[in-house]
Amino acid sequence: MNCELDFWVIGGDLRQVRLAEALARDGHRVHTFALGGQGEELPGLTAEPCLKGVEQADCVVLPLPALGADGLLSAPLDGEALSLEQMLDRLTPRQVICAGMVTPPAARAAEERGLVLHDYFAREELAIANAVPTAEGALQIAMEELPITLHGARALVVGYGRLGRLLAQRLSALGARVSVASRRFDHLAWAEAFGWGGERTGQLGGWLCGYDLVINTAPARVLGREELADLKEGALVIDLASKPGGVDLEEAARLGVKVIWALSLPGKVAPVTAGRCIRDTIYHILHELEVET
Amino acid sequence: MNCELDFWVIGGDLRQVRLAEALARDGHRVHTFALGGQGEELPGLTAEPCLKGVEQADCVVLPLPALGADGLLSAPLDGEALSLEQMLDRLTPRQVICAGMVTPPAARAAEERGLVLHDYFAREELAIANAVPTAEGALQIAMEELPITLHGARALVVGYGRLGRLLAQRLSALGARVSVASRRFDHLAWAEAFGWGGERTGQLGGWLCGYDLVINTAPARVLGREELADLKEGALVIDLASKPGGVDLEEAARLGVKVIWALSLPGKVAPVTAGRCIRDTIYHILHELEVET
Amino acid sequence: MNCELDFWVIGGDLRQVRLAEALARDGHRVHTFALGGQGEELPGLTAEPCLKGVEQADCVVLPLPALGADGLLSAPLDGEALSLEQMLDRLTPRQVICAGMVTPPAARAAEERGLVLHDYFAREELAIANAVPTAEGALQIAMEELPITLHGARALVVGYGRLGRLLAQRLSALGARVSVASRRFDHLAWAEAFGWGGERTGQLGGWLCGYDLVINTAPARVLGREELADLKEGALVIDLASKPGGVDLEEAARLGVKVIWALSLPGKVAPVTAGRCIRDTIYHILHELEVET
Amino acid sequence: MNCELDFWVIGGDLRQVRLAEALARDGHRVHTFALGGQGEELPGLTAEPCLKGVEQADCVVLPLPALGADGLLSAPLDGEALSLEQMLDRLTPRQVICAGMVTPPAARAAEERGLVLHDYFAREELAIANAVPTAEGALQIAMEELPITLHGARALVVGYGRLGRLLAQRLSALGARVSVASRRFDHLAWAEAFGWGGERTGQLGGWLCGYDLVINTAPARVLGREELADLKEGALVIDLASKPGGVDLEEAARLGVKVIWALSLPGKVAPVTAGRCIRDTIYHILHELEVET
Repeated sequence: MNCELDFWVIGGDLRQVRLAEALARDGHRVHTFALGGQGEELPGLTAEPCLKGVEQADCVVLPLPALGADGLLSAPLDGEALSLEQMLDRLTPRQVICAGMVTPPAARAAEERGLVLHDYFAREELAIANAVPTAEGALQIAMEELPITLHGARALVVGYGRLGRLLAQRLSALGARVSVASRRFDHLAWAEAFGWGGERTGQLGGWLCGYDLVINTAPARVLGREELADLKEGALVIDLASKPGGVDLEEAARLGVKVIWALSLPGKVAPVTAGRCIRDTIYHILHELEVET
Repeated sequence: MNCELDFWVIGGDLRQVRLAEALARDGHRVHTFALGGQGEELPGLTAEPCLKGVEQADCVVLPLPALGADGLLSAPLDGEALSLEQMLDRLTPRQVICAGMVTPPAARAAEERGLVLHDYFAREELAIANAVPTAEGALQIAMEELPITLHGARALVVGYGRLGRLLAQRLSALGARVSVASRRFDHLAWAEAFGWGGERTGQLGGWLCGYDLVINTAPARVLGREELADLKEGALVIDLASKPGGVDLEEAARLGVKVIWALSLPGKVAPVTAGRCIRDTIYHILHELEVET
Repeated sequence: MNCELDFWVIGGDLRQVRLAEALARDGHRVHTFALGGQGEELPGLTAEPCLKGVEQADCVVLPLPALGADGLLSAPLDGEALSLEQMLDRLTPRQVICAGMVTPPAARAAEERGLVLHDYFAREELAIANAVPTAEGALQIAMEELPITLHGARALVVGYGRLGRLLAQRLSALGARVSVASRRFDHLAWAEAFGWGGERTGQLGGWLCGYDLVINTAPARVLGREELADLKEGALVIDLASKPGGVDLEEAARLGVKVIWALSLPGKVAPVTAGRCIRDTIYHILHELEVET
Repeated sequence: MNCELDFWVIGGDLRQVRLAEALARDGHRVHTFALGGQGEELPGLTAEPCLKGVEQADCVVLPLPALGADGLLSAPLDGEALSLEQMLDRLTPRQVICAGMVTPPAARAAEERGLVLHDYFAREELAIANAVPTAEGALQIAMEELPITLHGARALVVGYGRLGRLLAQRLSALGARVSVASRRFDHLAWAEAFGWGGERTGQLGGWLCGYDLVINTAPARVLGREELADLKEGALVIDLASKPGGVDLEEAARLGVKVIWALSLPGKVAPVTAGRCIRDTIYHILHELEVET
């Protein structure tokens, strides 16, 4: 970082607040808007009352997700009601515009104005970086809910994507006896190469009863009636799959199986880290666009 | 375990409830008294309304600590007011009597009756086993309180006893950059051999500002005014030292340093595991006394 | 494994010998040919003097690589000169025929006879499984060659494929301070998520001087004159890239840099493990073809 | 290190050569004698032809062990025949004199001259530091000798002293399934706390057959006829116990059990690291004597 840039961080939750702080600490000029005035007082960091000056920004960071359920720019910390189009109308192609979870309509709205929305959430390195606080958040939940230690607990991680492998490694490091469930032989070979057990998803019935803790990371309905019924009493299920989730919650309630469906953990358990991860990704985008930071 | 014994578990907290269950699951006949009727329904496990039959027990397990602040047998889950002497009057030298944290007066009271109180809490293997849930509990607190992940956090573990080494290993396994502080060169050599940094206790001033998390395990006032003032803003201190503790709490409050003084973690965060640890230790005592279990 | 099959293991090196033994230990009938008569005496395992009976086999396993430099079936432990075509002429489409590193001409030769050569070496799970002994072999070389311990050594792993990640994890577990070099931001995010440093390949010059050990796993000329000249005196380079290798060996010799170019480690450092890995992969092939094993 | 001292390093093996180099690299003036002229050319490092000037030294470092089998100062790299007494006659109480493995007669010889021999080898921190290269050396031997990977191997570490715990941790980190054998319940509790299995020494017969690798670190005859006969074919035994060793070698030869008795590994596998460990220990001695370094 040897060159000071002008950033605007607009809307979003606590992660965006921490992002703005992290950018300011790196020596950039940072303006925030629609963040409810939150954030530490730092040199170079200004909470703006309006968008005046945004056209001077080198880089504009829109929230994650960019749009809320109401179709407006997501601004949960603030009453601000600003449409994406209003926002984009103030920007120019010279500026780097970043946003999280860019939908096709949003991308089109930008394109019509000759702009590009760089989706930081779509980048693999942010997904990996986010998997770290997600994995820690899952450990925290497991520690809070289980009356046994993770040390010595038998834990099953369903799915071996980014999150699955970080989770399996951390559980194992804390002394849990870890197995990984996947349909794929290469995933099971990875489990073996790291010293974990392997189960084949789709053949879980009959094996689940051995586990104290089952954490689902796969975007599929992996725990239905049969699987839930096989769990031993007191077993804990943590579902990290985004909607519609991997667990039949009704059936779980009927059977008395405790399920925690935990979404959006990074912003909840480690907003400062989550903000830094977004910052790093935005630096990568700027780097690839050859904007010196 | 090939021989069924008759156990009485008398008084104590949730750990004793779980201990009784664990003994029953191993096939022993278990009677509980003064546990508030808590515990699962299990074959071989009976909550007794009075002490009738205790003279038949092969092994009697008194609470941890054996005596409460009122000088009576500790029974926080129950209204029962029973003195140690009343209890001991019903027992005979043939029986193995175990208790936790046996004070000299308690030992004398037993001796006068020709009895021996085997202190399970004084045994090194229980202290080690208890360090596991304590370490996990400390991680849980750190995860709950810090707005950053342990991954990447700079953590200082003060003291390198049982707890210090398990904590350092777990923090490191979760990706924290760990240093250990001790006065002793051999402890610092251990830190080095495990790949952690080392700081010399007593020379901490000036170095503490680098840490996001400081966990004290040493039974000494290691964090006084000077050290607390050196901590960086937002740093978290967890004190695991038993009374009087290792942190000057008044000074910390004055300086706005967040300190969590966490005591008796095993029974709080993992009562089932804590109960099993006591069970294993009682088996060791029986083994050494050549009582077949 | 509940069903005994008839296997022929034909040609190859020590891995094939161990493969045959592992199959026999699992209860199958196993015939070997062209393995120089090597192998333990085991029930169900027969070294055959000729190919008589191969037409009865349920599964025929050809070597890895299937063909030697002379274009004949690879048989380094034996004088046997057998062409692939001669071999295939004795087989029928009913049989499962496995071979390692199947070349297009070899595949065509099979196809012309209505046969399929199942390439076990092309399967991802074998590649992963083989990365384990390769990583251990690299550690062994580093331990043998370096006058310092891996503990505390600064190690750079170039490339973050299967081998890179297993190597980085093992080096780190032994106490080395590990960095990973890659061109890709997602690889660097993985390094960060596992707690290792990151370097960008292509910008290594000027950074290499910090390392005691550099292990290349990338199939590219990553260490040319400039990079080699930057290494510090006494640094060790291990190149695990297959031909043409990732290091300019001439330049290294001129500069006096010690380079170990280590190929085919699994068969050399752990033939029993390598044989078991092939066995598991063949079972997967049979499983997918719905041959019950 | 802010103060340059005058060191003499006299006699010893490759470790002493590396020690002298390490001291010189830290900026001290270093004279060597009776090291066969070995060592790199470094500023401040002089190989002396005689002891002239030794009386000016701030610190004199004698070898490890101080005396050879012939009763003279140990000088295996050199023909020099110098008695301890001759050496001591040249020194004064003002100087710090360090030596390794100081015998009572040697200590008396010093005392008679008003001198103190500070035994660096007797210090706990050096013993711990030396356990690191010893553990790595044992891993290297196991990798070289076993036809399977350590990953997945079943390994038993006998004894849970300094070396046992570092070995168990490293084997486990490389993917071996590790058990620790000890007579002591507290050691077994440590094994459990780190996630390893436990066996009771003295009751090993009948259990040993499960292990691919047995490493003895205990100074006792733990593997006699009965235990050796129980080992499975192809199992490897590494004995790290100093003389008389922990394995009945005659019986092992008779039974065809492969035993590697590996002594003095630090100097053999990592002389540079071993030299640095001695240097650090000498600094600690100087620190405690309040000699500023």
